[in-house]
Amino acid sequence: MRIDIITCVPELLSGPFDHSILKRAKDKGLAEVVVHNLRDYATTKYKAVDDYAYGGGAGMVMMIEPIARCIDKLKSERDYDEVIYMTPDGKNFNQKEANKLSLKKNLIILCGHYKGVDQRVRDLFITKEISIGDFVLSGGELAAAVVADAVIRLIPGVLNDETSALSDSFQDDLLAPPVYTRPADYNGHKVPDILLSGHQAKIEEWRSEQAIKRTKERRPGLFKE
Amino acid sequence: MRIDIITCVPELLSGPFDHSILKRAKDKGLAEVVVHNLRDYATTKYKAVDDYAYGGGAGMVMMIEPIARCIDKLKSERDYDEVIYMTPDGKNFNQKEANKLSLKKNLIILCGHYKGVDQRVRDLFITKEISIGDFVLSGGELAAAVVADAVIRLIPGVLNDETSALSDSFQDDLLAPPVYTRPADYNGHKVPDILLSGHQAKIEEWRSEQAIKRTKERRPGLFKE
Repeated sequence: MRIDIITCVPELLSGPFDHSILKRAKDKGLAEVVVHNLRDYATTKYKAVDDYAYGGGAGMVMMIEPIARCIDKLKSERDYDEVIYMTPDGKNFNQKEANKLSLKKNLIILCGHYKGVDQRVRDLFITKEISIGDFVLSGGELAAAVVADAVIRLIPGVLNDETSALSDSFQDDLLAPPVYTRPADYNGHKVPDILLSGHQAKIEEWRSEQAIKRTKERRPGLFKE
Repeated sequence: MRIDIITCVPELLSGPFDHSILKRAKDKGLAEVVVHNLRDYATTKYKAVDDYAYGGGAGMVMMIEPIARCIDKLKSERDYDEVIYMTPDGKNFNQKEANKLSLKKNLIILCGHYKGVDQRVRDLFITKEISIGDFVLSGGELAAAVVADAVIRLIPGVLNDETSALSDSFQDDLLAPPVYTRPADYNGHKVPDILLSGHQAKIEEWRSEQAIKRTKERRPGLFKE
């Protein structure tokens, strides 16, 4: 999989893709994230990528021309399954969408910044608008990193142990059960006996009960689905 | 405001806080984010911060002792309003919660990683569990960065123009209306006439209508609230 992220603040994305799971995915040749600096596609003398909003009001708007040039160039190099725009008014991202996107080959993710992009970018180029939640960020950069992380870790071979992702929250519409590790006794706070029993069938039963209990308490909507 | 982020992969957080709005908040003395490497608080010879899960199964669990030592040290230095744990089964983060947290003085955010933290950490130290959405990430680091960004930009003085955050999506339970900037005509795709009219009252009326229309279409639940 290849993900091209288009941003006017590429520095914001310097950390996430050079470390941990995303780095491992890259080293194994399973996924590659390429960050594009929108300023490289600016058409004006001063490399502007934003301008005042028509009709007035606070906040700058990202111009269509640099974005169009960047997307056109990428599209001339390969076919893309989706051109995604990260925006708080997009469709809420969830694990189902992450699973779906993890099957794609090439994705473009455009990060909104300032007051967002000129509406014509959305009308003409964007095939999918995604929000990671009902809150506002400085820009779409962290949101794009979140989507890339959630998607790439699902690609077979990226995680060390494939069963690890399968036992995560949401993969079976249940939250994960509580987990414990050493010491068995921390200042008198003990690990549940059942987990130390060595009785694997009973342990799985306990975990399943706990997962259902936690889901009912914390995400009743998830459980009913 | 001060936010202390505790993580076992501090490199993942190298980008977001050194640039853009979060850097400006720091330079202005309005908000400070301090990242703590959990390994510095490890108690074992090999600086382990995770161990196998009791009861077996894939994935490692973050140990209570290094976390306890780090939190204890921070608490000995100042009072904290909340000790937050980022976890997919936490309460969903939204703009209301961002507003609430932006009024706090000192926050600790603990990033889950691997299969998460020993349940006793949650029972003994955590005052608030937050999820940024119903999906699973490699770790809580990006989620912590998202929360810090959403919260810090709301602190008065952080954004250049204070009206900018007020006109964002969700602040009035409405999504933002479409925005446009130059050129007025892009390959025949024109900016709506009303925005070029100079009639400010009519422009605001149009924006308000568009915001309501977009909210009804995309977030009917938000509109009914």
